[in-house]
Amino acid sequence: MARLLESVPNFSEGRRPEVVRDIVEAATATPGVRTLDWSSDPDHHRSVVTLVGEPEAVLVAVKAMTARAIHHIDLRAHQGSHPRMGAMDVIPLIPLTGLTMADAVAAARRLAADLAAAHDLPVYLYGEAAARPANRDLSRVREGQFEGLSSAIARPERAPDYGPARIHRTAGATAVGARGPLIAFNVNLDCADVGVARRIAREIRESSGGLPAVKAIGLSLADRGQTQVSMNLTDFRRTSIGEAYRAVTRAAEAQGASVVESEVVGLVPAEALLGEAARSLRLSGFCLEQVLELRLLDDDGNAGGAKEVGR
Amino acid sequence: MARLLESVPNFSEGRRPEVVRDIVEAATATPGVRTLDWSSDPDHHRSVVTLVGEPEAVLVAVKAMTARAIHHIDLRAHQGSHPRMGAMDVIPLIPLTGLTMADAVAAARRLAADLAAAHDLPVYLYGEAAARPANRDLSRVREGQFEGLSSAIARPERAPDYGPARIHRTAGATAVGARGPLIAFNVNLDCADVGVARRIAREIRESSGGLPAVKAIGLSLADRGQTQVSMNLTDFRRTSIGEAYRAVTRAAEAQGASVVESEVVGLVPAEALLGEAARSLRLSGFCLEQVLELRLLDDDGNAGGAKEVGR
Repeated sequence: MARLLESVPNFSEGRRPEVVRDIVEAATATPGVRTLDWSSDPDHHRSVVTLVGEPEAVLVAVKAMTARAIHHIDLRAHQGSHPRMGAMDVIPLIPLTGLTMADAVAAARRLAADLAAAHDLPVYLYGEAAARPANRDLSRVREGQFEGLSSAIARPERAPDYGPARIHRTAGATAVGARGPLIAFNVNLDCADVGVARRIAREIRESSGGLPAVKAIGLSLADRGQTQVSMNLTDFRRTSIGEAYRAVTRAAEAQGASVVESEVVGLVPAEALLGEAARSLRLSGFCLEQVLELRLLDDDGNAGGAKEVGR
Repeated sequence: MARLLESVPNFSEGRRPEVVRDIVEAATATPGVRTLDWSSDPDHHRSVVTLVGEPEAVLVAVKAMTARAIHHIDLRAHQGSHPRMGAMDVIPLIPLTGLTMADAVAAARRLAADLAAAHDLPVYLYGEAAARPANRDLSRVREGQFEGLSSAIARPERAPDYGPARIHRTAGATAVGARGPLIAFNVNLDCADVGVARRIAREIRESSGGLPAVKAIGLSLADRGQTQVSMNLTDFRRTSIGEAYRAVTRAAEAQGASVVESEVVGLVPAEALLGEAARSLRLSGFCLEQVLELRLLDDDGNAGGAKEVGR
């Protein structure tokens, strides 16, 4: 089956469309890579691109984007509302179909070493790829941003994982990480009291001892007379969409509320929903290779010969 | 999103590997078409190939396969255990992602007309593409097989939909149809009495007034002490996997039995399982375009510009 890696590089340019286009084109011009989305925010002065492909092709694309970002962007003159420390600021790698988190971590380390060597650039590993526990959290890695890092980088505890212990004069430093696919998942409740949604959010989120890899807040949907538990599932293999849904359902019932409906915002990996279908149907022995469309993503060409098929 | 058509051409050669390979290669050599499976059965003297791609590409592949099948196969010398009337015997077209049944029916009619014109071949429409109700059933179309059809074809009620009202001397006649994707779905019961599974099968299958587009039989799984309701779902948009599962569950409970597990045999379209996930999670406003891997199948290239994405 296809091995698919996602990457969502964030670079520090959101105002000059011709520069954004040039950097994005480094990705779209890479064979075997699909650019699913890109968007720029002038206030943040930052752009975000979503790429998917076989791991090696994605790394080629991200390296080409980084070279162009370093060419175009001078952080000494950069001001935006979003924290940043580098021209190519952050490169998360996300394992999709056919890849494990360990595969994504290994790819992140290769990428970080290559970027450091190619541009004499300090590169930090963060998230699941972090070499030091403190660096799992991106905001810790980026503390002080470009300006503060220029002196802080000399301190041993802020030393980069690859490249020199001084920032790149114009391009700062880059963080390369691995994480699970982020799923934005909301559950709406038939209850106008936002306190209920907030209590449920507190109960289920990881930071207050709830479900692993779940972030949650409670919101009011005032015009509907409903409230919402708005979640980010940061690793659906640890807490699935269905587990989050049922935890909210149970917590709501305990408070006398009930679930009206749910929604997935933006993109979702097929596996995250197929797993829920398999659970719901009590499917035994189901594998992703049985899904026709996922087979089509396989890059190894056509069926090589007569195979036994259950027909 | 990608528009994907599946075709499962059946041709009347299952013994000469070099001939099978040459016919299959007509498909694998067609750009934009993926050959997912092929298998030959020497007793049936017949081979079956599974192709998927954009509709036009699939029709190109199937026409090339038909030309080679007609070149290689002489039905006057053909004997096998499977009924057949043509060198290229049957070509079902199946709408997948992004296509409706009406699209598949329109494609079947174009294909039938092209094959008749290219080879002076009688071609019948069957299944959802049938122009006459009696021809919905393939076994009616193929009645008498190659040998019997040579005289029967002259009768008005057996006239082909395209091409001459006489069989092709060596290649007979071809049936082109449209149908839903067939899903082989079994549900196992904690009950050793095969009578229970048989009664449930009778209750749920379409032919005895049950669920539309469901075929079902009851089987014994003696070595496990279980029984099985073994189903073919011939159009999951009419009766979904989940509806079939829940109908079996209810019928089993009414007989004091319960469901142990279920299984999907062979390939399944993503939509058939994603729909069940959406139901189970009460997802509102969910669309297939949100599934990352299905986006990758899109042939229209990369994202064309900055898009609002819910991030």
